[in-house]
Amino acid sequence: MRGVMMYGPGDVRVEERDAPKVVEPTDAIVRLTASCICGSDLWPYRGAEPLYTTPQAMGHEYVGVVEQIGAQVKNVKVGDFVVGSFVASDNTCEICQAGYQSRCIHNVMMGEFGTQAELTRVPLADGTLVATPGQPEADLIPSLLAASDVLGTGWYGAVAAEAGPGKTISVVGDGAVGLSAVLAAKQLGAERIIMFSRHPERQALARAFGATDIIEDRGDEGAAKVKELTGGYGAHGTVEAVGTQESMWQAINATRPGGYVGYVGVSHGVELDGLNLFFTSVHLHGGPAPVRQYLPELIQLIWDRAIEPGKVFDLTLPIEDAAEGYKAMDQRSATKVLLTF
Amino acid sequence: MRGVMMYGPGDVRVEERDAPKVVEPTDAIVRLTASCICGSDLWPYRGAEPLYTTPQAMGHEYVGVVEQIGAQVKNVKVGDFVVGSFVASDNTCEICQAGYQSRCIHNVMMGEFGTQAELTRVPLADGTLVATPGQPEADLIPSLLAASDVLGTGWYGAVAAEAGPGKTISVVGDGAVGLSAVLAAKQLGAERIIMFSRHPERQALARAFGATDIIEDRGDEGAAKVKELTGGYGAHGTVEAVGTQESMWQAINATRPGGYVGYVGVSHGVELDGLNLFFTSVHLHGGPAPVRQYLPELIQLIWDRAIEPGKVFDLTLPIEDAAEGYKAMDQRSATKVLLTF
Repeated sequence: MRGVMMYGPGDVRVEERDAPKVVEPTDAIVRLTASCICGSDLWPYRGAEPLYTTPQAMGHEYVGVVEQIGAQVKNVKVGDFVVGSFVASDNTCEICQAGYQSRCIHNVMMGEFGTQAELTRVPLADGTLVATPGQPEADLIPSLLAASDVLGTGWYGAVAAEAGPGKTISVVGDGAVGLSAVLAAKQLGAERIIMFSRHPERQALARAFGATDIIEDRGDEGAAKVKELTGGYGAHGTVEAVGTQESMWQAINATRPGGYVGYVGVSHGVELDGLNLFFTSVHLHGGPAPVRQYLPELIQLIWDRAIEPGKVFDLTLPIEDAAEGYKAMDQRSATKVLLTF
Repeated sequence: MRGVMMYGPGDVRVEERDAPKVVEPTDAIVRLTASCICGSDLWPYRGAEPLYTTPQAMGHEYVGVVEQIGAQVKNVKVGDFVVGSFVASDNTCEICQAGYQSRCIHNVMMGEFGTQAELTRVPLADGTLVATPGQPEADLIPSLLAASDVLGTGWYGAVAAEAGPGKTISVVGDGAVGLSAVLAAKQLGAERIIMFSRHPERQALARAFGATDIIEDRGDEGAAKVKELTGGYGAHGTVEAVGTQESMWQAINATRPGGYVGYVGVSHGVELDGLNLFFTSVHLHGGPAPVRQYLPELIQLIWDRAIEPGKVFDLTLPIEDAAEGYKAMDQRSATKVLLTF
């Protein structure tokens, strides 16, 4: 099968790999209908994070059709169209039952398998995969794929930011996760949604997803603008979807004392000074999103065409051109790239 | 009037100072029935934190009788016995109304006035002071004084740790705040309360307050013991009541993914690595406790003799001997010192 491999910063190739097989009786093999490139794939692409192996199979998002199941799999069957989280989980341990499937005591990161490929093995299939109500129409595929990571991650950020009726939510990061957080905040009932963005097309998509205000300033100036817009108090909650020192403090300082910061950008070089944090009095919550918790609800919203998170994909390429897709995302000429087979 | 002054590390003196006067029409003057020394007073005493002025008037906890009120004060009257938080607040702004009076947009730190003294000015009296149902019996004074800071702070920590029925809560820090957090977790219905302590008398008080388990290990070993006691998962929530790098990570690592860390120890030298924090998936919340939020409930519990938080005071001294009290707390021969006039 064809799959994307990274050999080092900026060096992405598409190669033939062995097709995955059922190893454990709880495994499923899924034939991908589409895959995509994640903002987090850019960290090693930019040399800001080492590869785990060289070369490394890339990708952790996936939707597709179940091709084979292990002997113990009973929640999905061959032929089902499925969506799964970027973290495989048993969905039965205490952590999963509390809604934190991304930190399941048996969790397996799907990045291990490299889902920018025609086929993937999915461990703990019963706990990980959610079947759609039927075979989806083609135009639903991007949105279902978005549910596998960016939508679920933005949703988690918005939930952690306590988005809800009457609330003002600000969003730091105008990538696919930040944009999804805007969509999520809107769905969760937020009254006012403030997006930080300097990028005209992303601003437009943010507004389409529900943003009511756009701020182009960053850092302390950006945070100060949020306070100006909120009677000096700050946002009730903020989603942080970047992962840098500046973006974290921008999010924290944009939020009022007692407010909520949901941080879902994978931290790179972030150090939080304890005393400064202490006197912000914010709630800080984040980490890898428990996408599995939200999948049934998100799939239904997509199925009913109540939301269209697939709009974050603004470039579609055949997998052969994956290198071009990485380049476009790195240069920010594309927000998120969908790969077809 | 007599008041405690700190001239530098280890140098505490009791001196005559001018009596405070009503400055703003929203002020009250309170004649203290008792005051006390706080764990946070030990930071400058140990030279770990500079004085704001030299010498500095010390103290921020207080109970007593209203002696004078400004023209606009209407919620308390001369002769009322009152308890107030260590932060004065208007109790009307959006931050106060959301329950974060310690971060009121008009907040004033009571440490500014130095309440280890016979009299104190209390700004924003209507929003800050809560009158007791009547003149308290003498044996209630220590508990009412505890409500002014340590009990309210421990309570906030336990609330932030989401202590409640069926929950396992661990508590880092066996000072007066940590012990109060044990009492709070018990009152809030926690099923199991794990106290970290190596000090036999504090262990005994923790058990009297509701602790079910004691762990003598610290740091990673201590956190690992909590995981052992909780089926490998970790506590549902942890109260951090120290404020050091070791105690913060001990608290975070003792807590399960998706769990809650309430941190109320004023941070000294804490730096949180963003990536490590990200993968813990805990909720982190803390800061200066909004004691005012809890005062009506806590005063009633004390009045009804349902709780006796005043047990944290294990040494009572006349104010003239304040220096001896600081020394006893510094050497940990006393947990908390009550000062009388």
